[in-house]
Amino acid sequence: MSWFDYPASSSDPSAPPRPVSYGHPSYGQSYGQESAAYGQTYPPAQGQSQYRPPGVAASFPPGTEPEIVRIFEQTDSDRSGYIDAAELGRVLSTDGYTPFSPRTVRLILHLFAENQTDPTRVGPAGFVKAWRALKHWQTVFEKFDRDRSRTIEQDELRDALFSLGFAVPPQVLHMLVSKYDSTGQSMSIGYDNFIQCGLIVKGLTEKFKDKDLTLTGSATLDYTTFMLMILPFIIA
Amino acid sequence: MSWFDYPASSSDPSAPPRPVSYGHPSYGQSYGQESAAYGQTYPPAQGQSQYRPPGVAASFPPGTEPEIVRIFEQTDSDRSGYIDAAELGRVLSTDGYTPFSPRTVRLILHLFAENQTDPTRVGPAGFVKAWRALKHWQTVFEKFDRDRSRTIEQDELRDALFSLGFAVPPQVLHMLVSKYDSTGQSMSIGYDNFIQCGLIVKGLTEKFKDKDLTLTGSATLDYTTFMLMILPFIIA
Repeated sequence: MSWFDYPASSSDPSAPPRPVSYGHPSYGQSYGQESAAYGQTYPPAQGQSQYRPPGVAASFPPGTEPEIVRIFEQTDSDRSGYIDAAELGRVLSTDGYTPFSPRTVRLILHLFAENQTDPTRVGPAGFVKAWRALKHWQTVFEKFDRDRSRTIEQDELRDALFSLGFAVPPQVLHMLVSKYDSTGQSMSIGYDNFIQCGLIVKGLTEKFKDKDLTLTGSATLDYTTFMLMILPFIIA
Repeated sequence: MSWFDYPASSSDPSAPPRPVSYGHPSYGQSYGQESAAYGQTYPPAQGQSQYRPPGVAASFPPGTEPEIVRIFEQTDSDRSGYIDAAELGRVLSTDGYTPFSPRTVRLILHLFAENQTDPTRVGPAGFVKAWRALKHWQTVFEKFDRDRSRTIEQDELRDALFSLGFAVPPQVLHMLVSKYDSTGQSMSIGYDNFIQCGLIVKGLTEKFKDKDLTLTGSATLDYTTFMLMILPFIIA
Protein backbone atom coordinates (compact mmCIF):
# COMPACT_ATOMS: atom_id res chain seq x y z
CA MET A 1 0.00 0.00 0.00
CA SER A 2 2.32 2.69 -1.23
CA TRP A 3 -0.33 5.41 -0.90
CA PHE A 4 -0.46 4.75 2.79
CA ASP A 5 2.35 7.04 3.72
CA TYR A 6 1.89 6.58 7.44
CA PRO A 7 3.77 8.00 9.19
CA ALA A 8 4.71 10.41 6.41
CA SER A 9 8.36 9.63 6.12
CA SER A 10 8.79 9.29 2.38
CA SER A 11 8.17 12.03 -0.13
CA ASP A 12 5.60 11.92 -2.90
CA PRO A 13 6.79 13.48 -6.15
CA SER A 14 3.26 14.73 -6.86
CA ALA A 15 3.11 16.59 -3.60
CA PRO A 16 3.98 20.24 -3.38
CA PRO A 17 6.76 21.42 -1.12
CA ARG A 18 5.58 21.79 2.41
CA PRO A 19 5.31 25.29 3.82
CA VAL A 20 8.41 25.96 5.79
CA SER A 21 6.64 28.04 8.41
CA TYR A 22 4.96 24.86 9.64
CA GLY A 23 8.02 22.71 9.51
CA HIS A 24 7.37 19.27 8.14
CA PRO A 25 3.92 18.22 9.32
CA SER A 26 3.61 14.47 9.43
CA TYR A 27 0.48 12.37 9.38
CA GLY A 28 -1.53 13.49 12.34
CA GLN A 29 0.89 16.04 13.71
CA SER A 30 -0.81 19.04 15.19
CA TYR A 31 0.05 22.55 14.24
CA GLY A 32 1.16 25.47 16.28
CA GLN A 33 3.90 23.78 18.24
CA GLU A 34 6.67 26.10 17.25
CA SER A 35 8.61 27.37 20.20
CA ALA A 36 9.59 30.99 20.41
CA ALA A 37 11.60 33.20 22.66
CA TYR A 38 8.76 35.14 24.19
CA GLY A 39 5.67 34.22 26.08
CA GLN A 40 2.43 35.95 26.84
CA THR A 41 -0.23 35.31 29.42
CA TYR A 42 -3.90 35.89 28.89
CA PRO A 43 -5.49 38.15 29.90
CA PRO A 44 -2.42 40.34 29.63
CA ALA A 45 -1.24 41.89 32.88
CA GLN A 46 -0.40 45.08 30.99
CA GLY A 47 -2.08 46.34 27.88
CA GLN A 48 -5.43 47.12 26.37
CA SER A 49 -7.34 44.47 28.24
CA GLN A 50 -7.44 44.55 32.01
CA TYR A 51 -9.96 41.85 32.75
CA ARG A 52 -9.29 38.40 34.14
CA PRO A 53 -12.51 36.44 34.56
CA PRO A 54 -13.00 34.74 37.92
CA GLY A 55 -11.55 31.29 38.04
CA VAL A 56 -9.78 31.65 34.72
CA ALA A 57 -6.04 31.27 34.82
CA ALA A 58 -5.75 30.50 31.12
CA SER A 59 -2.65 31.67 29.39
CA PHE A 60 -1.37 31.78 25.88
CA PRO A 61 1.38 29.36 24.97
CA PRO A 62 4.91 30.71 24.62
CA GLY A 63 5.40 32.18 21.18
CA THR A 64 1.84 33.34 20.60
CA GLU A 65 1.75 36.17 18.12
CA PRO A 66 0.38 39.41 19.69
CA GLU A 67 -2.04 39.61 16.75
CA ILE A 68 -3.71 36.35 17.84
CA VAL A 69 -3.97 37.58 21.42
CA ARG A 70 -5.65 40.73 20.14
CA ILE A 71 -8.09 38.70 18.01
CA PHE A 72 -8.91 36.45 20.97
CA GLU A 73 -9.68 39.43 23.17
CA GLN A 74 -11.86 41.06 20.55
CA THR A 75 -13.62 37.76 19.89
CA ASP A 76 -14.28 36.87 23.51
CA SER A 77 -17.18 39.28 23.64
CA ASP A 78 -18.63 37.94 26.87
CA ARG A 79 -15.19 38.04 28.52
CA SER A 80 -15.47 34.47 29.70
CA GLY A 81 -11.89 33.60 28.86
CA TYR A 82 -13.22 31.15 26.29
CA ILE A 83 -14.40 31.33 22.70
CA ASP A 84 -17.72 29.57 22.08
CA ALA A 85 -19.39 28.57 18.83
CA ALA A 86 -21.18 31.88 18.31
CA GLU A 87 -18.02 33.91 18.95
CA LEU A 88 -15.89 31.65 16.77
CA GLY A 89 -18.42 31.72 13.97
CA ARG A 90 -18.39 35.53 14.01
CA VAL A 91 -14.63 35.96 13.93
CA LEU A 92 -14.17 33.34 11.22
CA SER A 93 -16.64 35.12 8.96
CA THR A 94 -14.33 38.12 8.73
CA ASP A 95 -11.60 36.44 6.73
CA GLY A 96 -12.92 37.45 3.32
CA TYR A 97 -14.57 34.13 2.53
CA THR A 98 -18.18 33.25 3.09
CA PRO A 99 -18.91 32.40 6.73
CA PHE A 100 -18.25 28.91 7.97
CA SER A 101 -21.27 26.69 8.51
CA PRO A 102 -22.32 26.04 12.13
CA ARG A 103 -21.25 22.42 11.68
CA THR A 104 -17.74 23.43 10.62
CA VAL A 105 -17.50 25.72 13.64
CA ARG A 106 -18.58 22.89 15.95
CA LEU A 107 -16.00 20.57 14.37
CA ILE A 108 -13.29 23.17 14.96
CA LEU A 109 -14.26 23.34 18.62
CA HIS A 110 -14.38 19.54 18.87
CA LEU A 111 -10.88 19.23 17.48
CA PHE A 112 -9.21 22.08 19.32
CA ALA A 113 -11.00 22.22 22.69
CA GLU A 114 -8.49 21.80 25.50
CA ASN A 115 -11.07 20.06 27.67
CA GLN A 116 -12.52 17.16 25.71
CA THR A 117 -15.34 16.74 28.21
CA ASP A 118 -16.54 20.20 27.16
CA PRO A 119 -15.82 20.52 23.45
CA THR A 120 -18.13 23.51 23.04
CA ARG A 121 -15.46 26.17 23.59
CA VAL A 122 -11.74 26.83 23.35
CA GLY A 123 -9.47 28.71 25.71
CA PRO A 124 -6.36 30.62 24.63
CA ALA A 125 -4.23 27.55 23.92
CA GLY A 126 -6.89 25.83 21.80
CA PHE A 127 -7.73 29.07 20.02
CA VAL A 128 -4.11 29.64 19.05
CA LYS A 129 -3.81 26.13 17.61
CA ALA A 130 -7.12 26.45 15.76
CA TRP A 131 -6.33 29.91 14.42
CA ARG A 132 -2.90 28.91 13.15
CA ALA A 133 -4.22 25.73 11.59
CA LEU A 134 -7.10 27.53 9.85
CA LYS A 135 -4.85 30.29 8.54
CA HIS A 136 -2.46 27.66 7.26
CA TRP A 137 -5.26 25.66 5.64
CA GLN A 138 -6.54 28.85 4.04
CA THR A 139 -3.12 29.42 2.48
CA VAL A 140 -3.07 25.82 1.27
CA PHE A 141 -6.56 26.16 -0.21
CA GLU A 142 -5.63 29.34 -2.07
CA LYS A 143 -2.49 27.70 -3.37
CA PHE A 144 -4.36 24.75 -4.84
CA ASP A 145 -7.32 26.77 -6.07
CA ARG A 146 -5.21 27.70 -9.06
CA ASP A 147 -7.99 29.22 -11.15
CA ARG A 148 -9.33 31.26 -8.19
CA SER A 149 -12.70 29.53 -8.54
CA ARG A 150 -12.89 29.06 -4.76
CA THR A 151 -13.31 25.35 -5.37
CA ILE A 152 -10.78 22.55 -5.66
CA GLU A 153 -11.04 19.20 -7.40
CA GLN A 154 -10.12 15.71 -6.29
CA ASP A 155 -6.47 15.75 -7.37
CA GLU A 156 -5.99 19.20 -5.88
CA LEU A 157 -7.63 18.02 -2.67
CA ARG A 158 -5.20 15.09 -2.59
CA ASP A 159 -2.22 17.42 -2.92
CA ALA A 160 -3.64 19.92 -0.45
CA LEU A 161 -4.25 17.26 2.20
CA PHE A 162 -0.84 15.77 1.53
CA SER A 163 0.76 19.15 2.07
CA LEU A 164 -1.10 19.23 5.42
CA GLY A 165 0.48 15.90 6.31
CA PHE A 166 -2.27 13.46 5.30
CA ALA A 167 -1.76 10.88 2.59
CA VAL A 168 -5.41 10.12 1.88
CA PRO A 169 -6.13 7.07 -0.32
CA PRO A 170 -7.89 7.65 -3.67
CA GLN A 171 -11.10 5.86 -2.65
CA VAL A 172 -11.39 8.08 0.40
CA LEU A 173 -10.70 11.24 -1.64
CA HIS A 174 -13.35 10.19 -4.12
CA MET A 175 -15.88 9.69 -1.35
CA LEU A 176 -15.05 13.05 0.21
CA VAL A 177 -15.48 14.92 -3.06
CA SER A 178 -18.64 13.00 -3.98
CA LYS A 179 -20.24 13.62 -0.60
CA TYR A 180 -19.43 17.31 -0.52
CA ASP A 181 -20.51 17.97 -4.08
CA SER A 182 -24.24 18.20 -3.51
CA THR A 183 -24.91 18.78 -7.21
CA GLY A 184 -23.09 15.61 -8.22
CA GLN A 185 -21.93 17.51 -11.28
CA SER A 186 -18.78 19.46 -10.60
CA MET A 187 -16.87 16.98 -8.39
CA SER A 188 -15.21 19.87 -6.59
CA ILE A 189 -15.50 21.33 -3.12
CA GLY A 190 -15.65 24.88 -1.84
CA TYR A 191 -13.75 26.57 0.94
CA ASP A 192 -16.04 25.82 3.89
CA ASN A 193 -16.24 22.17 2.89
CA PHE A 194 -12.48 22.03 2.36
CA ILE A 195 -11.97 23.18 5.93
CA GLN A 196 -14.61 20.73 7.18
CA CYS A 197 -12.93 18.00 5.15
CA GLY A 198 -9.54 18.88 6.60
CA LEU A 199 -10.92 18.84 10.14
CA ILE A 200 -12.55 15.45 9.63
CA VAL A 201 -9.49 13.90 7.98
CA LYS A 202 -7.18 15.32 10.64
CA GLY A 203 -9.44 14.30 13.52
CA LEU A 204 -10.26 10.78 12.34
CA THR A 205 -6.73 10.05 11.19
CA GLU A 206 -5.23 11.10 14.49
CA LYS A 207 -7.76 9.01 16.41
CA PHE A 208 -7.12 6.02 14.18
CA LYS A 209 -3.37 6.42 14.40
CA ASP A 210 -3.60 6.42 18.21
CA LYS A 211 -4.99 2.89 17.95
CA ASP A 212 -2.56 1.76 15.25
CA LEU A 213 0.05 0.74 17.77
CA THR A 214 2.40 -0.87 15.27
CA LEU A 215 1.94 1.88 12.63
CA THR A 216 1.04 -0.68 9.98
CA GLY A 217 -2.05 1.16 8.76
CA SER A 218 -4.38 -1.19 10.60
CA ALA A 219 -5.97 -1.03 14.06
CA THR A 220 -7.98 -3.31 16.28
CA LEU A 221 -10.86 -1.58 17.99
CA ASP A 222 -13.53 -2.77 20.37
CA TYR A 223 -17.10 -1.67 19.73
CA THR A 224 -17.22 0.94 22.52
CA THR A 225 -13.93 2.51 21.46
CA PHE A 226 -15.10 2.59 17.85
CA MET A 227 -18.39 4.29 18.73
CA LEU A 228 -16.89 6.81 21.17
CA MET A 229 -14.19 7.66 18.63
CA ILE A 230 -16.50 8.56 15.79
CA LEU A 231 -19.80 9.73 17.28
CA PRO A 232 -18.45 13.24 18.05
CA PHE A 233 -17.76 13.71 14.36
CA ILE A 234 -21.18 12.42 13.36
CA ILE A 235 -23.28 14.37 15.83
CA ALA A 236 -21.12 17.54 15.95
CA MET B 1 -18.35 -7.22 29.06
CA SER B 2 -21.84 -8.32 29.91
CA TRP B 3 -23.45 -5.23 28.40
CA PHE B 4 -22.08 -6.24 25.06
CA ASP B 5 -24.88 -8.51 24.11
CA TYR B 6 -23.61 -9.13 20.62
CA PRO B 7 -25.19 -10.96 18.95
CA ALA B 8 -28.27 -10.57 21.07
CA SER B 9 -28.73 -14.10 22.24
CA SER B 10 -29.28 -13.61 25.94
CA SER B 11 -32.09 -11.63 27.49
CA ASP B 12 -31.66 -8.56 29.65
CA PRO B 13 -34.10 -8.33 32.53
CA SER B 14 -34.15 -4.55 32.22
CA ALA B 15 -35.28 -4.70 28.64
CA PRO B 16 -38.91 -4.53 27.67
CA PRO B 17 -40.52 -7.36 25.74
CA ARG B 18 -39.87 -7.04 22.07
CA PRO B 19 -42.77 -6.25 19.80
CA VAL B 20 -44.04 -9.49 18.33
CA SER B 21 -44.87 -8.03 14.94
CA TYR B 22 -41.13 -7.67 14.28
CA GLY B 23 -40.16 -11.05 15.59
CA HIS B 24 -37.01 -10.98 17.67
CA PRO B 25 -34.67 -8.44 16.15
CA SER B 26 -31.09 -9.19 16.97
CA TYR B 27 -28.11 -6.84 16.99
CA GLY B 28 -27.93 -5.42 13.52
CA GLN B 29 -30.77 -7.37 11.98
CA SER B 30 -32.74 -5.35 9.49
CA TYR B 31 -36.45 -4.95 9.65
CA GLY B 32 -39.15 -5.67 7.16
CA GLN B 33 -38.12 -9.15 6.18
CA GLU B 34 -41.39 -10.86 6.97
CA SER B 35 -42.62 -13.05 4.15
CA ALA B 36 -46.24 -13.05 3.20
CA ALA B 37 -48.51 -14.83 0.80
CA TYR B 38 -49.01 -12.05 -1.68
CA GLY B 39 -46.75 -9.91 -3.77
CA GLN B 40 -47.15 -6.62 -5.54
CA THR B 41 -45.18 -5.00 -8.30
CA TYR B 42 -44.59 -1.31 -8.61
CA PRO B 43 -45.93 0.51 -10.44
CA PRO B 44 -49.01 -1.73 -10.31
CA ALA B 45 -50.15 -3.23 -13.59
CA GLN B 46 -53.77 -2.73 -12.53
CA GLY B 47 -55.08 -0.10 -10.18
CA GLN B 48 -55.00 3.59 -9.53
CA SER B 49 -51.58 4.22 -10.99
CA GLN B 50 -50.93 3.38 -14.60
CA TYR B 51 -47.44 4.80 -15.07
CA ARG B 52 -44.21 2.86 -15.35
CA PRO B 53 -41.26 5.20 -15.85
CA PRO B 54 -38.86 4.28 -18.65
CA GLY B 55 -36.14 1.90 -17.52
CA VAL B 56 -37.74 1.27 -14.16
CA ALA B 57 -38.58 -2.32 -13.39
CA ALA B 58 -38.69 -1.80 -9.65
CA SER B 59 -41.08 -3.94 -7.72
CA PHE B 60 -42.29 -4.18 -4.16
CA PRO B 61 -41.11 -7.14 -2.15
CA PRO B 62 -43.59 -9.95 -1.50
CA GLY B 63 -45.79 -9.10 1.46
CA THR B 64 -45.79 -5.33 1.02
CA GLU B 65 -48.88 -3.84 2.59
CA PRO B 66 -51.10 -2.10 -0.03
CA GLU B 67 -51.07 0.98 2.24
CA ILE B 68 -47.32 1.35 1.78
CA VAL B 69 -47.67 0.99 -1.98
CA ARG B 70 -50.27 3.74 -1.94
CA ILE B 71 -48.02 6.01 0.14
CA PHE B 72 -45.09 5.38 -2.19
CA GLU B 73 -47.16 6.31 -5.23
CA GLN B 74 -48.46 9.46 -3.60
CA THR B 75 -44.97 10.40 -2.44
CA ASP B 76 -43.23 9.79 -5.74
CA SER B 77 -44.48 13.11 -7.05
CA ASP B 78 -42.15 13.24 -10.03
CA ARG B 79 -43.06 9.64 -10.97
CA SER B 80 -39.44 8.62 -11.19
CA GLY B 81 -39.99 5.27 -9.49
CA TYR B 82 -37.76 6.52 -6.66
CA ILE B 83 -38.24 8.61 -3.54
CA ASP B 84 -35.63 11.34 -3.12
CA ALA B 85 -34.79 13.49 -0.11
CA ALA B 86 -37.36 16.19 -0.83
CA GLU B 87 -40.14 13.66 -1.36
CA LEU B 88 -39.18 11.62 1.70
CA GLY B 89 -38.96 14.73 3.85
CA ARG B 90 -42.46 15.73 2.80
CA VAL B 91 -44.11 12.39 3.48
CA LEU B 92 -42.37 11.96 6.82
CA SER B 93 -43.64 15.34 8.02
CA THR B 94 -47.21 14.06 7.87
CA ASP B 95 -46.94 11.60 10.72
CA GLY B 96 -48.09 13.98 13.43
CA TYR B 97 -44.63 14.82 14.73
CA THR B 98 -42.53 17.78 13.75
CA PRO B 99 -40.80 17.27 10.41
CA PHE B 100 -37.54 15.38 10.29
CA SER B 101 -34.40 17.42 9.79
CA PRO B 102 -32.76 17.26 6.34
CA ARG B 103 -29.85 15.41 7.93
CA THR B 104 -32.14 12.71 9.33
CA VAL B 105 -33.74 12.32 5.92
CA ARG B 106 -30.33 11.93 4.28
CA LEU B 107 -29.33 9.35 6.88
CA ILE B 108 -32.51 7.38 6.16
CA LEU B 109 -31.65 7.37 2.47
CA HIS B 110 -28.05 6.37 3.20
CA LEU B 111 -29.17 3.41 5.27
CA PHE B 112 -32.00 2.16 3.11
CA ALA B 113 -30.92 2.98 -0.46
CA GLU B 114 -30.82 -0.20 -2.52
CA ASN B 115 -27.94 1.15 -4.61
CA GLN B 116 -25.16 2.22 -2.29
CA THR B 117 -23.38 4.04 -5.09
CA ASP B 118 -26.40 6.38 -5.23
CA PRO B 119 -27.62 6.78 -1.65
CA THR B 120 -29.71 9.82 -2.52
CA ARG B 121 -32.94 7.93 -3.22
CA VAL B 122 -34.80 4.73 -2.45
CA GLY B 123 -36.84 2.52 -4.75
CA PRO B 124 -39.83 0.48 -3.62
CA ALA B 125 -37.82 -2.16 -1.73
CA GLY B 126 -35.78 0.38 0.21
CA PHE B 127 -38.84 2.51 0.86
CA VAL B 128 -40.74 -0.43 2.33
CA LYS B 129 -37.87 -1.28 4.68
CA ALA B 130 -37.44 2.35 5.71
CA TRP B 131 -41.15 2.93 6.22
CA ARG B 132 -41.61 -0.19 8.34
CA ALA B 133 -38.52 0.57 10.41
CA LEU B 134 -39.57 4.18 11.03
CA LYS B 135 -43.11 3.19 11.96
CA HIS B 136 -41.71 0.59 14.33
CA TRP B 137 -39.24 3.07 15.85
CA GLN B 138 -42.07 5.56 16.29
CA THR B 139 -44.01 2.95 18.25
CA VAL B 140 -40.94 2.26 20.37
CA PHE B 141 -40.39 5.96 21.01
CA GLU B 142 -44.00 6.45 22.10
CA LYS B 143 -43.78 3.42 24.37
CA PHE B 144 -40.71 4.75 26.17
CA ASP B 145 -41.85 8.38 26.23
CA ARG B 146 -43.96 7.47 29.22
CA ASP B 147 -44.85 11.01 30.25
CA ARG B 148 -45.74 12.01 26.66
CA SER B 149 -43.11 14.77 26.80
CA ARG B 150 -41.90 13.80 23.32
CA THR B 151 -38.44 13.36 24.79
CA ILE B 152 -36.71 10.32 26.30
CA GLU B 153 -33.86 10.15 28.77
CA GLN B 154 -30.73 8.03 28.82
CA ASP B 155 -32.16 4.95 30.55
CA GLU B 156 -35.22 5.05 28.31
CA LEU B 157 -32.98 5.41 25.27
CA ARG B 158 -31.05 2.35 26.44
CA ASP B 159 -34.24 0.31 26.72
CA ALA B 160 -35.62 1.66 23.45
CA LEU B 161 -32.45 0.79 21.53
CA PHE B 162 -32.32 -2.60 23.23
CA SER B 163 -35.85 -3.29 22.12
CA LEU B 164 -34.68 -2.46 18.59
CA GLY B 165 -31.94 -5.07 18.93
CA PHE B 166 -28.99 -2.90 19.99
CA ALA B 167 -27.28 -3.36 23.35
CA VAL B 168 -25.54 0.01 23.51
CA PRO B 169 -22.91 0.43 26.27
CA PRO B 170 -23.51 3.12 28.92
CA GLN B 171 -20.60 5.32 27.83
CA VAL B 172 -21.98 5.39 24.28
CA LEU B 173 -25.50 6.13 25.50
CA HIS B 174 -24.17 8.98 27.61
CA MET B 175 -22.33 10.44 24.64
CA LEU B 176 -25.40 10.16 22.43
CA VAL B 177 -27.62 11.94 24.94
CA SER B 178 -24.99 14.60 25.70
CA LYS B 179 -24.39 15.35 22.05
CA TYR B 180 -28.06 15.56 21.16
CA ASP B 181 -29.01 17.70 24.12
CA SER B 182 -27.84 21.05 22.84
CA THR B 183 -28.90 22.82 26.02
CA GLY B 184 -26.76 20.53 28.16
CA GLN B 185 -29.50 20.79 30.77
CA SER B 186 -32.19 18.21 30.20
CA MET B 187 -30.10 15.21 29.15
CA SER B 188 -32.98 13.96 27.04
CA ILE B 189 -33.56 13.69 23.32
CA GLY B 190 -36.54 14.46 21.13
CA TYR B 191 -38.20 12.43 18.43
CA ASP B 192 -36.20 13.58 15.39
CA ASN B 193 -32.94 13.03 17.27
CA PHE B 194 -34.14 9.65 18.52
CA ILE B 195 -34.69 8.54 14.95
CA GLN B 196 -31.32 9.99 13.90
CA CYS B 197 -29.73 8.25 16.85
CA GLY B 198 -31.38 4.95 15.90
CA LEU B 199 -30.21 5.29 12.31
CA ILE B 200 -26.64 6.01 13.38
CA VAL B 201 -26.52 3.19 15.93
CA LYS B 202 -28.07 0.73 13.48
CA GLY B 203 -25.83 1.77 10.61
CA LEU B 204 -22.55 1.89 12.50
CA THR B 205 -23.25 -1.26 14.48
CA GLU B 206 -24.07 -3.25 11.37
CA LYS B 207 -20.93 -1.98 9.63
CA PHE B 208 -18.80 -2.80 12.65
CA LYS B 209 -20.37 -6.22 13.05
CA ASP B 210 -19.55 -7.01 9.42
CA LYS B 211 -15.88 -6.63 10.33
CA ASP B 212 -16.14 -8.46 13.66
CA LEU B 213 -15.56 -11.83 12.04
CA THR B 214 -15.33 -13.78 15.29
CA LEU B 215 -18.23 -11.90 16.96
CA THR B 216 -16.10 -11.05 19.98
CA GLY B 217 -17.02 -7.36 20.03
CA SER B 218 -13.73 -6.33 18.46
CA ALA B 219 -12.69 -5.73 14.87
CA THR B 220 -9.48 -5.09 12.99
CA LEU B 221 -9.82 -2.42 10.34
CA ASP B 222 -7.38 -0.90 7.91
CA TYR B 223 -7.35 2.87 7.52
CA THR B 224 -9.17 2.95 4.18
CA THR B 225 -11.93 0.61 5.39
CA PHE B 226 -12.31 2.68 8.54
CA MET B 227 -12.63 5.94 6.63
CA LEU B 228 -14.98 4.60 3.95
CA MET B 229 -17.15 3.01 6.64
CA ILE B 230 -17.78 6.14 8.63
CA LEU B 231 -17.48 9.12 6.27
CA PRO B 232 -21.00 8.63 4.87
CA PHE B 233 -22.39 9.09 8.37
CA ILE B 234 -20.27 12.17 9.00
CA ILE B 235 -20.91 13.98 5.75
CA ALA B 236 -24.53 12.82 5.22
